[in-house]
Amino acid sequence: MKIEHLGIAVKDLGISNELFEKLLGKPSYKEETVGGEAVKTSFFEIGESKIELLEATSEDSPITKYLEKNREGIHHIAFAVDDMEKEIQRLKNEGFIFINETPKEGADNKMVVFLHPKSTNGVLVELCCDRK
Amino acid sequence: MKIEHLGIAVKDLGISNELFEKLLGKPSYKEETVGGEAVKTSFFEIGESKIELLEATSEDSPITKYLEKNREGIHHIAFAVDDMEKEIQRLKNEGFIFINETPKEGADNKMVVFLHPKSTNGVLVELCCDRK
Repeated sequence: MKIEHLGIAVKDLGISNELFEKLLGKPSYKEETVGGEAVKTSFFEIGESKIELLEATSEDSPITKYLEKNREGIHHIAFAVDDMEKEIQRLKNEGFIFINETPKEGADNKMVVFLHPKSTNGVLVELCCDRK
Repeated sequence: MKIEHLGIAVKDLGISNELFEKLLGKPSYKEETVGGEAVKTSFFEIGESKIELLEATSEDSPITKYLEKNREGIHHIAFAVDDMEKEIQRLKNEGFIFINETPKEGADNKMVVFLHPKSTNGVLVELCCDRK
């Protein structure tokens, strides 16, 4: 397991892209819109992990809802797993609650599931694996 | 540069240690109290990075203040840098604002500085390097 990426909710992807380019000393390597999640994303590499900036593309976006209640900031942490089904089962057996336990398409060619923050100390946790 | 660790503010280190041991499938490898920051910490390895749980040890702790305004959750992200002085200067030139720009002792044998979230999209950013 490793930290695959950190998702950061932002209001304006253009402004935040510039800011994170200065902070990390390198440009975003990819922008991608994920229709199913109603987000526009931008990725920065950092070691074996990535920073994913997330801007809402509609009022129904999870990022719109997040920013109604919270300031811009770290939205979720994603762990890369090798065997998604096995890891979901292991965590269910440990009592963790999933927002979706059927993997869905995420950004960056991944399949993703989310654990509910109420079972993970307030942290929105994503598990992801490469799409086949 | 890499993500050295993610700091997560928790109310009860004992309860959260158990939870993260289940989530990550491995136990904490170290607990450490950092007097200067009034925090008790617990570390989990994950790939090249770490998860640092933070419990306040006094009412003046930054974690006490954080939890008065926020739920438990991701508190900060720490980047490992090789040359701290050079990186501080680079970021100052880029217009970032520091909470402290003189490195101070952090957990896990590190020297640390913090950037102010108002200059970093609401994200509390730590830079750290090994103590010499």
